[in-house]
Amino acid sequence: MHQRQLVIKAPRQGLFEITASIAEVVQQSLISRGLCHLFVQHTSASLLIQENADPSARADLESFFERLANSHSHLFTHTDEGPDDMPSHIKSALTQTSLTIPVLEGHLGLGTWQGIYLWEHRIQLPPRRLCVSGFG
Amino acid sequence: MHQRQLVIKAPRQGLFEITASIAEVVQQSLISRGLCHLFVQHTSASLLIQENADPSARADLESFFERLANSHSHLFTHTDEGPDDMPSHIKSALTQTSLTIPVLEGHLGLGTWQGIYLWEHRIQLPPRRLCVSGFG
Amino acid sequence: MHQRQLVIKAPRQGLFEITASIAEVVQQSLISRGLCHLFVQHTSASLLIQENADPSARADLESFFERLANSHSHLFTHTDEGPDDMPSHIKSALTQTSLTIPVLEGHLGLGTWQGIYLWEHRIQLPPRRLCVSGFG
Repeated sequence: MHQRQLVIKAPRQGLFEITASIAEVVQQSLISRGLCHLFVQHTSASLLIQENADPSARADLESFFERLANSHSHLFTHTDEGPDDMPSHIKSALTQTSLTIPVLEGHLGLGTWQGIYLWEHRIQLPPRRLCVSGFG
Repeated sequence: MHQRQLVIKAPRQGLFEITASIAEVVQQSLISRGLCHLFVQHTSASLLIQENADPSARADLESFFERLANSHSHLFTHTDEGPDDMPSHIKSALTQTSLTIPVLEGHLGLGTWQGIYLWEHRIQLPPRRLCVSGFG
Repeated sequence: MHQRQLVIKAPRQGLFEITASIAEVVQQSLISRGLCHLFVQHTSASLLIQENADPSARADLESFFERLANSHSHLFTHTDEGPDDMPSHIKSALTQTSLTIPVLEGHLGLGTWQGIYLWEHRIQLPPRRLCVSGFG
């Protein structure tokens, strides 16, 4: 079991591609055939595998989730940490805290159009801790 | 591979924290560095990692998902098992049937504010079977 | 680590049960106690564990997600690949790209009413690549 802690600070609220950072950990692990597991140690940021080609797909995803998480936001009671806090928990609950990706012939077994994203849901952009585990 | 079956009965519909029970299984497994996998063997209860501090965050999550799953509930055709059945399947589909969490230095590698929750979506609170697998 | 690539073509848009195909891979792997991991190498199809008994539950799930993903579809900007493309990415983001299921006594440790589904979100039904990994 090869484990690494990464600290990532997204440049803005929204989807931030981290495929290259994860691919580097996989390469360093020297695992040829196995699995790579990612875990984000936060409840207001999450992980997602999505289209890595057309930025308009990500923009539409971000605005869809923003609208959805804020529908009936006037009913929220957990508001002490700002108006982006409760929508952050909702977006995290609707997406992933952990992802597991195959490692095939020493590389991440992603499809042609798949990228790995850290989804930063907060406006203030705190540094985010990720735990990457590889095994084979 | 260390595997344990747990049977958990939530005290009420909604998010029920099970972090301590899972931490105990991890401790008993004597795994130092690895992964812990949880799987709920039901389609009307699910798993979620969420904020473990302020109960208002969980209350808002519960009511958000309740509203969302019941939007257009008049269109449901799967209604034989009661009005909470189809929303249960929807909430399960929107959250997780399985979770994988890193084990770091013999402990669950959760973030400071992360707790593990069984999300009971039914009103009648049946006992729920969980399979916990640890490996390192 | 036992790995297999499957190519699956769903017969129609929606939930397509693949439990038997995955069970066959598990059986061939000769793993007795372990985990089975599934990964779909696409961003417009996804994976889900859901009720395998009453087809009305799946029909309601499909129409719920169709309505949800298309709410405010007039705001989408990623429309070059047809009106079912952006809703496909949204449904994928709301469900799973990967699933991990326990293997207990040589068999998938699913609950009585759980089936594994490939959720085809596109109308044109392209062949879908799945990577199945088993280990114990």
